[in-house]
Amino acid sequence: MLIDKSITGFLAELKSDSPAPGGGSAAALVGAIGAALGIMVGNLTLGSAKYETVHEQCKGVSLDFEERLASLEKYIDEDTEVFKQVMKAYKLPKNTDEEKQVRIKAIQEFLKAASTLPFTVARTCLDVLELSVKIISIGNVNAASDAAVAGRMAEAAMWSAIYNVRINLGSIKDADFVADMKSRVDDIVARSEVLMDQLVKTANEKI
Amino acid sequence: MLIDKSITGFLAELKSDSPAPGGGSAAALVGAIGAALGIMVGNLTLGSAKYETVHEQCKGVSLDFEERLASLEKYIDEDTEVFKQVMKAYKLPKNTDEEKQVRIKAIQEFLKAASTLPFTVARTCLDVLELSVKIISIGNVNAASDAAVAGRMAEAAMWSAIYNVRINLGSIKDADFVADMKSRVDDIVARSEVLMDQLVKTANEKI
Repeated sequence: MLIDKSITGFLAELKSDSPAPGGGSAAALVGAIGAALGIMVGNLTLGSAKYETVHEQCKGVSLDFEERLASLEKYIDEDTEVFKQVMKAYKLPKNTDEEKQVRIKAIQEFLKAASTLPFTVARTCLDVLELSVKIISIGNVNAASDAAVAGRMAEAAMWSAIYNVRINLGSIKDADFVADMKSRVDDIVARSEVLMDQLVKTANEKI
Repeated sequence: MLIDKSITGFLAELKSDSPAPGGGSAAALVGAIGAALGIMVGNLTLGSAKYETVHEQCKGVSLDFEERLASLEKYIDEDTEVFKQVMKAYKLPKNTDEEKQVRIKAIQEFLKAASTLPFTVARTCLDVLELSVKIISIGNVNAASDAAVAGRMAEAAMWSAIYNVRINLGSIKDADFVADMKSRVDDIVARSEVLMDQLVKTANEKI
């Protein structure tokens, strides 16, 4: 599995001439890096008596980060798997009308999965961004830069996942599915803009 | 070394209650992920005869990406090392006036190194962003989302490194050093804004 590879090994696989793993798995990984940093800030806050009044609140935020980290780690490999299924569907035989129909149905089905999964990644990264805004506000000020990094990583990972949603939507014939997905993407982009304003404002105050 | 750890192992170390590795090493890693994706887009372009007219140009871009990838992989561990040296300097004895002087001198020296290194990371990530703009413009359109991801990763990594520069500048007494560093950071931020506009515009056209 990708997550068992070394950093060097993962980077080597990423840069190779194979399209998988690509931007989708990278998005999930960078979201996971953001979540892990958020947890570190939580730990550095829980470890300091100076922040005792926010310890309970901080524990809740850390648990929410942990949940997202676990999901994003899982999505690193899942994104590559779903992408490989699309590639496989494109390679199905197309000699007879029946084969053509089976192939097109499979392609459409897997393309939907290959846009639904990065949407879930994007949604989870939005959560990481929201949690980063919470932790930079209440957390240990010595780790404010780490909390700001967590938020920046989450935003970039969200956008990276969105590009992966969009590139697949371009080949999906089901207009209702495409319209619904586009509207859901617009919603999370709008929410992320509000959160980024808050993150940058707090980062500028504390760093 | 951090880069020899598995993805899972690195994330576990990142989220732990130790401040190192933290946002600085994460910034270098995310910049490296961006560079690796850029190289992949280059490979997918060089592998397609359809893009023959840009093959020479693409080879140059890929070589530039490779150079940044190698540097950023190195900075992942270097950032944690320099941060540990700052922590060690803070723990030096301060019983006598001489000890106090030695300690303060060491802290100031390592704080400078701990802001110079993330500045270099930020500068290298700006290069990755610039190269991502080039590759999304000339590269294989099927990998346009990956090129856009490369640019987003580079921008987030640049900002993450900048937060690490800034948090250390806050404790540096050498006013000239601080002013010079701030002005250099402002320059790369201004350049990144122009490049991000180009990246997002091209991404919206191609994805």
